[in-house]
Amino acid sequence: MSDTLSKLAKTLPRLPRGFIDHGPAALGAQRRMLETIREVYELYGFEAVETPFVEYTEALGKFLPDTDRPNAGVFSFRDDDEQWLSLRYDLTAPLARHVAEHFDRLPKPYRSYRAGYVFRNEKPGPGRFRQFMQCDADTVGSASPAADAEICMMAADTMERLGIPRGAYIVKVNNRKVLDGVMEAIGLGGEANAGRRLTVLRAIDKLDRLGPDGVKLLLGAGRKDESGDFTKGAGLDDSQAATILAFTSARAGDNAATIANLRTLTLAGAGEEGIDELAQIAALTASSGYGEDRVLIDPSVVRGLEYYTGPVFEVELTFEVRDEDGRNVRFGSVAGGGRYDGLVGRFRDEPVPATGFSIGVSRLIAALTHLGKVSTEDETGPVVVLVMDRDQAASYQKLVATLRQAGIRAEMYLGAAGMNAQMKYADRRNSPCAVIQGSNERAAGEVQIKDLKLGATLRAIKDRSEYLAQQAEAQFSVRSEDLVAGVRRVLARKG
Amino acid sequence: MSDTLSKLAKTLPRLPRGFIDHGPAALGAQRRMLETIREVYELYGFEAVETPFVEYTEALGKFLPDTDRPNAGVFSFRDDDEQWLSLRYDLTAPLARHVAEHFDRLPKPYRSYRAGYVFRNEKPGPGRFRQFMQCDADTVGSASPAADAEICMMAADTMERLGIPRGAYIVKVNNRKVLDGVMEAIGLGGEANAGRRLTVLRAIDKLDRLGPDGVKLLLGAGRKDESGDFTKGAGLDDSQAATILAFTSARAGDNAATIANLRTLTLAGAGEEGIDELAQIAALTASSGYGEDRVLIDPSVVRGLEYYTGPVFEVELTFEVRDEDGRNVRFGSVAGGGRYDGLVGRFRDEPVPATGFSIGVSRLIAALTHLGKVSTEDETGPVVVLVMDRDQAASYQKLVATLRQAGIRAEMYLGAAGMNAQMKYADRRNSPCAVIQGSNERAAGEVQIKDLKLGATLRAIKDRSEYLAQQAEAQFSVRSEDLVAGVRRVLARKG
Repeated sequence: MSDTLSKLAKTLPRLPRGFIDHGPAALGAQRRMLETIREVYELYGFEAVETPFVEYTEALGKFLPDTDRPNAGVFSFRDDDEQWLSLRYDLTAPLARHVAEHFDRLPKPYRSYRAGYVFRNEKPGPGRFRQFMQCDADTVGSASPAADAEICMMAADTMERLGIPRGAYIVKVNNRKVLDGVMEAIGLGGEANAGRRLTVLRAIDKLDRLGPDGVKLLLGAGRKDESGDFTKGAGLDDSQAATILAFTSARAGDNAATIANLRTLTLAGAGEEGIDELAQIAALTASSGYGEDRVLIDPSVVRGLEYYTGPVFEVELTFEVRDEDGRNVRFGSVAGGGRYDGLVGRFRDEPVPATGFSIGVSRLIAALTHLGKVSTEDETGPVVVLVMDRDQAASYQKLVATLRQAGIRAEMYLGAAGMNAQMKYADRRNSPCAVIQGSNERAAGEVQIKDLKLGATLRAIKDRSEYLAQQAEAQFSVRSEDLVAGVRRVLARKG
Repeated sequence: MSDTLSKLAKTLPRLPRGFIDHGPAALGAQRRMLETIREVYELYGFEAVETPFVEYTEALGKFLPDTDRPNAGVFSFRDDDEQWLSLRYDLTAPLARHVAEHFDRLPKPYRSYRAGYVFRNEKPGPGRFRQFMQCDADTVGSASPAADAEICMMAADTMERLGIPRGAYIVKVNNRKVLDGVMEAIGLGGEANAGRRLTVLRAIDKLDRLGPDGVKLLLGAGRKDESGDFTKGAGLDDSQAATILAFTSARAGDNAATIANLRTLTLAGAGEEGIDELAQIAALTASSGYGEDRVLIDPSVVRGLEYYTGPVFEVELTFEVRDEDGRNVRFGSVAGGGRYDGLVGRFRDEPVPATGFSIGVSRLIAALTHLGKVSTEDETGPVVVLVMDRDQAASYQKLVATLRQAGIRAEMYLGAAGMNAQMKYADRRNSPCAVIQGSNERAAGEVQIKDLKLGATLRAIKDRSEYLAQQAEAQFSVRSEDLVAGVRRVLARKG
């Protein structure tokens, strides 16, 4: 192949924007976090199922924010037989396909969970990637609000098991049926208004960021942002917009009072049913000991995805962090979900109720890091056996094999550099100690063990006798056959 | 969204060919296997690094078997700015990009590992998928055969830690430099013969399947297979083909004898250097206690990928399984790799030596399943709390919450079906027991616990008193506050 390679001009080593590499610290944090989430999901009776990254485009459907481009939001490409394939943009649409495909052999209700990367063909920004990880749990085949209540409680348990204390998170619940009932009552019902309803939904979803005044503009004629860009609004008149905003601000001191507020609204369609479901969810969570400090009805939460049909959930972290402009803001949403009774039904002649939720893994790791719950320090690296005499590789390799057989992470230095560079390499690997055997040590049947952490502290010691005592501890000789014991002596010194 | 959905014709729930879903048993086996592999890799001083699934097409390069289609073997699509992106087809090409991109900040040699799905846009077949998982470890920045030797030893350790006994696997080693030396000596050197050299390589790679006679045809004019399809050969004359086959059959009783055989070949270029490297690998593995029953020099192994430049490795499982045609065949290759000194250099003005290997995760799971090392049984499911009175959901939910707080996997039945269907559901979930509370039990402050495993054995009991004793154990009442203790009594009965 060298011929083939030499013909190529040098290629630029780079990633497409919105894609990143992950190093050991981030991967370790993610692995431990997913392990904890998995334990909670399994405790709740959910079982693992995983779908591939590639699906037929039509099987995934189009439920991301609409735009004019056919490909918008999704990475798509044609198969050999000209059919369109897409990378999954979430884990819910593929689950709906999976359940529909294997409907008869699955237990129903079907509880399942999965973690995996999803892809969005969008403009990336700070903290916004085109590949990111989600971890979902879903109950398919149950229309009961008990299934929704369970998702809320599981969300709360997950946060606490990950070390987010009660009070620092809140699981907010709302119901799309109530919002639909409000919209129908003010004349936004029916097929002809589907687009305007979606505009209203997306406007409310920006409450966090724009506040009621900004949302009011988006409900009305439209809004010009700081950069001068104009977003067309839903075209509601003042009275209609006021009704929508009355709904979104219906939250009161407790769930019972919020529900009472909602009951005062004029609702059409399934609006009242939606309030009843919220009342049931509140009752079920309360009876299991999940108070309003954990699961709270909040009509301002609507979620941006188009496919929700009933209860929607959002897990918000309530502590403040500084944003890019140096302002203190709530950390905000790290997970969300809702009922999507229509998604499986796309494939079948019968409706299949379903509810679920999704954790934004990277965002939650950022939150845990902020709370000091994720170690950002490099883990301790392997013991490094230095190569003093290049012709003795076999004997150094044997020292390494001895350490590994004792369960100690170890490696022989495999580069071509000298002693100093080898010590620097060991430091860079965050190695606890270096093992050194020159010709003198070999002749004497000994090895030197150098504690790199202790060694680094010697410089600061003023007192001569203390220095000498510490120095003797920081680098010492043992018989070759006592190598494992000597290294363990150093490893035992770590906190 | 119901409006949007109702407009759609029913979509077929299906996956593109070559893609599959994975259930809990397969995912559990994979998770445990990757955990073990990770432990071994970390013991050897490798650290985790992960690259995204999408890369610039030119960054990945084209090292899969050539075909005429520009897209062949790889899934590719254009970004918004018209640049070509591809799904990674292995984990090596992205690692080369990663190392080149972050060269200055990485320790060198740089040891890293990663597990992840890769994608091949190929015709799928039985056991051949378009998305499959690999788990790789690589050392970049070391030209030393000690780095190659270490990969071989780590491969052996990995197999044994996974439960594949010594003797049931063998790590085979060869060196592309020796093959290149043979080819150059018979007049296949130089740029003009690059295509023919690749054809020779691919022919040898089929030794396992076609035997020496079949390979001889592919080295010569070509070969017609059983279906009548003709594959054009490398066009070597008989004497040239014989020289190649003499090389591939140079394996003798032990590594020393194999090396002696290789020394008798007429070699040009770096051929002799390749033999020296093999001798060093044999010496290093032997001195660390890895005999020829574990790491064996075998010149018949060449690996099909184009980018290898030196030592190549293959882990072969030696036990026999029945193939599709009912014949006993060796299980064969489950992992492989080699030295790829040119891949990082594609991005840089200096050569960067590198070596690594890749485990085919799905194939290895199939092997472990065959050896009985992977449980194919469904894991025990959650305790199922039945819903006898629909208006008592809150009290059932509270029973479930109590079990979960005690760390017991549990769920409330969330469907709409009656008692019999609920019991069937519990069986289908492989539930250890069902918890039942009707109005009588509730009035008495009790719950019934039904052991589903023990209950299933009652039918076979002939003796009346034994039946009654067992029946009393299989379903019993406890006070509601003793629910956890009662369920634990059942759980303790499991093997």
